Amino acid sequence: MPHIALPDETPGIAGLFAFRPETAGPLTALAETLLRGPNSLSRGERELIAAYVSSLNACRFCASSHAAFAAAQLPEGRQLVDQVCADPHTAPVSPKLGALLRIAASVQRDGRSVSEDEVAAARKEGATDVEIHDTVLIAAAFCMFNRYVDGLAATVPEDPAAYAAMAERIVTHGYGSTVSG
Amino acid sequence: MPHIALPDETPGIAGLFAFRPETAGPLTALAETLLRGPNSLSRGERELIAAYVSSLNACRFCASSHAAFAAAQLPEGRQLVDQVCADPHTAPVSPKLGALLRIAASVQRDGRSVSEDEVAAARKEGATDVEIHDTVLIAAAFCMFNRYVDGLAATVPEDPAAYAAMAERIVTHGYGSTVSG
Repeated sequence: MPHIALPDETPGIAGLFAFRPETAGPLTALAETLLRGPNSLSRGERELIAAYVSSLNACRFCASSHAAFAAAQLPEGRQLVDQVCADPHTAPVSPKLGALLRIAASVQRDGRSVSEDEVAAARKEGATDVEIHDTVLIAAAFCMFNRYVDGLAATVPEDPAAYAAMAERIVTHGYGSTVSG
Repeated sequence: MPHIALPDETPGIAGLFAFRPETAGPLTALAETLLRGPNSLSRGERELIAAYVSSLNACRFCASSHAAFAAAQLPEGRQLVDQVCADPHTAPVSPKLGALLRIAASVQRDGRSVSEDEVAAARKEGATDVEIHDTVLIAAAFCMFNRYVDGLAATVPEDPAAYAAMAERIVTHGYGSTVSG
């Protein structure tokens, strides 16, 4: 049961957005820009970073939803998402994405643990400064979203169909649709 | 030295905002709403929560800057900020703010560690659902901002005068002024 009285039965972060539209606006704009805005990283790759960090933070709602959003937008589908969350070092991702996932894991632990060597390794595999920046900010943002959802004990759907429905809406209409309902 | 090539010498998060204005917009809107928007928690109290969480995350730039912003907006000034960051349990804050700071510390560790007892204790001291929500989101947001700044190794001014100048600008013009320069 959520720690505060939410206005409706909407599960997950959308229930929190309905409670506090003043902060929902900037939060959804951030998610839309980071995960769906113009970028040399595909939408699927960015959702994969979000799902991986959420899984490291053991946030069931965000890990389940962003795994579904990543699977829906990656050619390799759900199998790759599960492989990355189980062990990114052995998952069949490109060397560049592998290096970015290592940076994301460091950010999740503590921003100060991102090393020059990790950044140099990503750059050597072709990562641009914008890709490195966006990887750090996606990982940092999910350290916020995960704590927001879990810190208020938002409800977590058990039925995988709920996440599939969310994925269809996000892929089609974007994160703005989580505010407007 | 920052991990990516920033467009100018601006230290801290403002240098990152200049590098990526697309994400700077939502991030500054979030800070402005959470820390300066209409609220039954004062601006000083909200900056105190931000400074405390940044100090728990050992983010030198954010801890120093938000300590300065809190000190500039709290009647008790800098001494109270230092007392809270040293030990919030013995600092002379109201019982309500003390209970909210305990929730913020739990969020900083892991959103799942916020307990029903902690929320009930805050409510018993008069905290509203919006105040509990905003405390959780401020704490979560600084787990993002701290990781963003440190994960990209943004430069950290050593001179206290730099933070005093930032405080004057934020208190007078708000967080939007960090984007427009």
